[in-house]
This record gives sequence, structure tokens and C-alpha cells, in this order.
Amino acid sequence: MTFTDYSGPFTFASRFEEGSGTNPEELVGAAIAGCYSMFLSALISGDGLSPKSIDTNASVTLAKDDIGPNITSINLECSVVCEGLSQEKFNELAQTAKEKCPISRLYSGGTATIELNASLV
Amino acid sequence: MTFTDYSGPFTFASRFEEGSGTNPEELVGAAIAGCYSMFLSALISGDGLSPKSIDTNASVTLAKDDIGPNITSINLECSVVCEGLSQEKFNELAQTAKEKCPISRLYSGGTATIELNASLV
Repeated sequence: MTFTDYSGPFTFASRFEEGSGTNPEELVGAAIAGCYSMFLSALISGDGLSPKSIDTNASVTLAKDDIGPNITSINLECSVVCEGLSQEKFNELAQTAKEKCPISRLYSGGTATIELNASLV
Repeated sequence: MTFTDYSGPFTFASRFEEGSGTNPEELVGAAIAGCYSMFLSALISGDGLSPKSIDTNASVTLAKDDIGPNITSINLECSVVCEGLSQEKFNELAQTAKEKCPISRLYSGGTATIELNASLV
């Protein structure tokens, strides 16, 4: 499967100032937030339950080192509503989704630390 | 600098079938294509030249291994129009942009091989 179609509007202003449009960091955050939600949803469903909602938000931090600008951290905030899911099982699945979702695997080993704060609400 | 605002429409169909909307792989591709173009533009400008156009397209390949789906390769196709830029200098800057652009650095060390095909046209 190969993907090539997306094009998003972004400019210097949308990246480094307060301009409208998106930027690479937002796209990177949207990719992992979306992928994480889908992956966690699949894991919970595989356990025989139907989540009512899974909401994930990613904050991406851009800093600078000797080489230049770099992404140092990605913080995932996830909240899940799911009847019948125990806290223990939820913790296990939330962690598994972080390790196994393809976008998380793409980013692992690069410049960023990926942090997860997942709550069952 | 922290980025949290982007939200894109995507569904199971837009990811794995022919549905409309975007998906994480397209976002990942758009992020590196955009970042690469901006970085290369900055390098060429730093060399005292003004590129007329820089066009980068990313193809992202999703495959499957023992752990699950994963992104195995990202191919960047870049074409640049810039008066006064030598082929030799262009090759050097195109390669530097691949190594140093922050999104490329984020993805390095993960599951994907990043390939670049850059032409000065």
C-alpha cells in the first residue's frame, strides 16, 4: 500500500509564527494521534468490547540542537470511554498500542521521546 | 514551540480502502515532503541563490511484519528550479537537507528507509 495524495497548505508563517494553515509538526502529531486511536480501538475490539469514544491529542515540541531544529518530544493525551473495560486491562492495551502502532514505530529511535498519558473515563 | 491544533478527517476506509479523507501515512508523507522542501530552500538561500521552485512528493509504503503494520519506506521525489545553482552544489545541499531536516531526523532510526531522488531541472 502506497500513499501519495495528501497536500496541506503551509507556509513559513504557519510553521514558525501565528499564520493560518498547517505545518510539518502538526501533521506529525495528527498522524500519531490518529494512528494511536485506531490501534487502541482495534485492541479493545479484539478483546470483545466496543469503546464509546477514544480521543487522542498529540503535542509536538520543536527545539534546536547543534545540527538544527529537531523534534524532542511528542506527548499523547488519550481518554477513552468504554463500558466493561477494567483499569488494569486498559493500562495494558494503552501501552501496547503505544509500542505497536505503526506511526509510533516509525518515530521510535529518532530524536523524539514519546510520552503517553492515557485515562479511562 | 509546541503544536497541538491540527485535526484531519480520516476513517478506516480512507486508510485501508479507497474512502475519501486522509490517513496517518499521508500525513507522515506530507510532513516530510514539506519539511524537506523548506529545509532545502533555506540551504539554497543560505548559499545566496533564490530557488524558483522546489517540489517534493513523498510516497509512503505500509507493510506488515510480526508485530503488525509498519512503514517500511518513504521515497522522496524532489525537483528544483534554480538559476545559477551547479549540479554538484545541488547534490550536496539535497543530501544535507535529507540528513538534517527535523522530520527526516524524527523518522531516522525507526522502521522506514528514507530514499531521495532529487533533480535539478
